[in-house]
Amino acid sequence: MQYPSKLIEEAVNEVSKLPGIGKKTALRLVLHLLKEETVATEALAESLVNLRTRINYCKTCFNISDSDTCAICTSHRRNASIICVVEDTPDVLAIENTGQYNGHYHVLGGIISPINGIGPDDLNIDSLITRVDNHAEVEEIILALSATMEGDTTAFYITKKLKPAGKKVTTIARGVPVGGELEYADEITLGRSILSRSVYDVED
Amino acid sequence: MQYPSKLIEEAVNEVSKLPGIGKKTALRLVLHLLKEETVATEALAESLVNLRTRINYCKTCFNISDSDTCAICTSHRRNASIICVVEDTPDVLAIENTGQYNGHYHVLGGIISPINGIGPDDLNIDSLITRVDNHAEVEEIILALSATMEGDTTAFYITKKLKPAGKKVTTIARGVPVGGELEYADEITLGRSILSRSVYDVED
Repeated sequence: MQYPSKLIEEAVNEVSKLPGIGKKTALRLVLHLLKEETVATEALAESLVNLRTRINYCKTCFNISDSDTCAICTSHRRNASIICVVEDTPDVLAIENTGQYNGHYHVLGGIISPINGIGPDDLNIDSLITRVDNHAEVEEIILALSATMEGDTTAFYITKKLKPAGKKVTTIARGVPVGGELEYADEITLGRSILSRSVYDVED
Repeated sequence: MQYPSKLIEEAVNEVSKLPGIGKKTALRLVLHLLKEETVATEALAESLVNLRTRINYCKTCFNISDSDTCAICTSHRRNASIICVVEDTPDVLAIENTGQYNGHYHVLGGIISPINGIGPDDLNIDSLITRVDNHAEVEEIILALSATMEGDTTAFYITKKLKPAGKKVTTIARGVPVGGELEYADEITLGRSILSRSVYDVED
């Protein structure tokens, strides 16, 4: 496509790098910004750069946080005896939205996936083991991972690693459709799957 | 929805102001940026601000342009005897993409719409009349406006205004579905509608 301006072409190229946004949608968004006030575009750009450059991660659970330790980890209302292990931040948001969970989290930052070259050492798994070892009050670790091959592999690996600690390891009920990604499950299914979690056991 | 960080909340709010992007899509886009390198976000933000602050409009046809006069108005390969009148820049892009048109353009910057408080004086109509009066080489004015009530009103108004100049005024064939917006028409329909344009006449 021939754009009337290099500036438009550059903006379209940048916007269409976002997931699920093609050149046509990008052009529509870019032309929309041209119709709006300049301050609107500046506010958008600033919020994105601020987000990317100032974002912090919680030292304890590795969830996104504005402070060193996130609001969930510091809250006295949350049950510190349960840690829910998830792949990434959207999963925390999804589980929080169900209103069915009141414990802590541990964000792995990904999932074991040999095909993408992601091994256990690339994830926050060692820190989870250390965290469980150092906090006697932890009684249960819930594995809330996607019901995919990678999710199962990761759950298996973590369970083996946690075995020496002798804690209860559970997994959310497979009410989530098998083969589905966790973050797209509806709130009721996801909430129920947390309530009806079952003991996850691995033979040595 | 409860966001884990103010920065995310602000970014989601800004992104979801874009047309067709809701809070959930905005969150997905924002979390995607967090996974990418910081430079990617900075490039995106910079391209948007550059676009909004540096954009120029052609003095002759009011299309978006990097220079004072756009590439189409300055090109010797384009037929200066025809001016195609369109509502806005996306329409120019859509017509250019058909490859069926080789003349000049005139971008109105909108359409007469009393319900939105847009009258003829808010649009580049006077400049079109002046342009036609000052350029004897112009033989034909094609009205390529959306097949809506507003489009018809605008076409009617412009035709009346152009009457004294005594030029041929045509309108693109209504091959575009009636009631449809011009920029969403497919290229073949739009291309044909330009080829089979008919004389547009108004009784005094």
